[in-house]
Amino acid sequence: MAPDASQPSRHTVGRLSLYRGLLDRLLGEGRSHVFSHELAALAGATASQVRRDLMAVGSVGSPVRGYDVRALADTIGRFLDAPEGQRAALVGVGHLGGAILAFFAGRRPHLSIVAAFDTDPQKTDRVILGCRCYQAAEMEKVIAAEKIDVAVLAVPAGAAQAAADSLVRAGVRGLLNFAPVRLRVPEGVFVEDMDMAVSLEKVAFFARHAGTADA
Amino acid sequence: MAPDASQPSRHTVGRLSLYRGLLDRLLGEGRSHVFSHELAALAGATASQVRRDLMAVGSVGSPVRGYDVRALADTIGRFLDAPEGQRAALVGVGHLGGAILAFFAGRRPHLSIVAAFDTDPQKTDRVILGCRCYQAAEMEKVIAAEKIDVAVLAVPAGAAQAAADSLVRAGVRGLLNFAPVRLRVPEGVFVEDMDMAVSLEKVAFFARHAGTADA
Repeated sequence: MAPDASQPSRHTVGRLSLYRGLLDRLLGEGRSHVFSHELAALAGATASQVRRDLMAVGSVGSPVRGYDVRALADTIGRFLDAPEGQRAALVGVGHLGGAILAFFAGRRPHLSIVAAFDTDPQKTDRVILGCRCYQAAEMEKVIAAEKIDVAVLAVPAGAAQAAADSLVRAGVRGLLNFAPVRLRVPEGVFVEDMDMAVSLEKVAFFARHAGTADA
Repeated sequence: MAPDASQPSRHTVGRLSLYRGLLDRLLGEGRSHVFSHELAALAGATASQVRRDLMAVGSVGSPVRGYDVRALADTIGRFLDAPEGQRAALVGVGHLGGAILAFFAGRRPHLSIVAAFDTDPQKTDRVILGCRCYQAAEMEKVIAAEKIDVAVLAVPAGAAQAAADSLVRAGVRGLLNFAPVRLRVPEGVFVEDMDMAVSLEKVAFFARHAGTADA
């Protein structure tokens, strides 16, 4: 299927999300304006890349003062966020799942983890870091009832595909996958892999072969 | 600086690491041989991509039996791993840092996290999940003494650049960065970013705009 030309690429969306996070930090530091070259330095991008990305969401900075930090964060938010908010689930409440709940707790009002699932009865039927934890068997019912369309998978490799299948059946259309396997999903379901084992081995390899990695 | 043509790209190294992890799982399931198209399906790659990657490390499968699983895992290991082993540090022992220690504990004998650092005295001068936890002030001394050349950053955004600067001064040449900022490092230092906030926002965006992401 040809990508829809009116939609941004996953790289553009990733950069916009990064810019917004950086703008939030600048706001916290009391900054009112920022130049594209400053944002570029923080984002590891070029100033012209930043200007192109921001023009795509309708923002043009002033040559004298740069961009208004708050207005720009709001503009990116209107582009990235669902106006009615969006609800996510977490599957797997082990060490990593707990860290994910802690990381996202209260972070973004419009995108929150509203349900977690685990097979361990010690962890279920209680509230962890503000998030209700259900038994894995209730997953499809809760996902549908709570209108959840995004999920984070923090389960062992052997359990990931079955969990993804249940989530997709229940209506999930985006998966952030921490399990060290690649998932098979129907067309129209978006998967982003975060494989810590692969990433650390990559870093270790290029630490020994310093300066040889492509950019 | 032009990349060294004799070195593989970061994508190739990432795929080889993924294949090795998948081969370890197949070994655990008692499999002795695997075909390139099976490995490809598990890795989300094409069979010809898999054969090209494996040929680059000197492995050619048999058309009849495929690849010997154990021999192939060993061959990839000789390519990816430092023969003398490689030592990593973790900076930041919060929720996420603890999950990272738990994830990597005992995972790979040749690549282990041998020291962790935190500013919180409650967490330092003790052993957490088999890893000794030092005060952040001791970082440069311990990194150099323990011959550590890889580090995982799991600190808040505002602390990441200063930690990276210290690590690089002490001899670290590869960083796995979980902090939601992009780091400035000298040439020859390799950085891989794992930004959970950006990844979840990307997944949420494309869950709403189903089927529009580029592959």
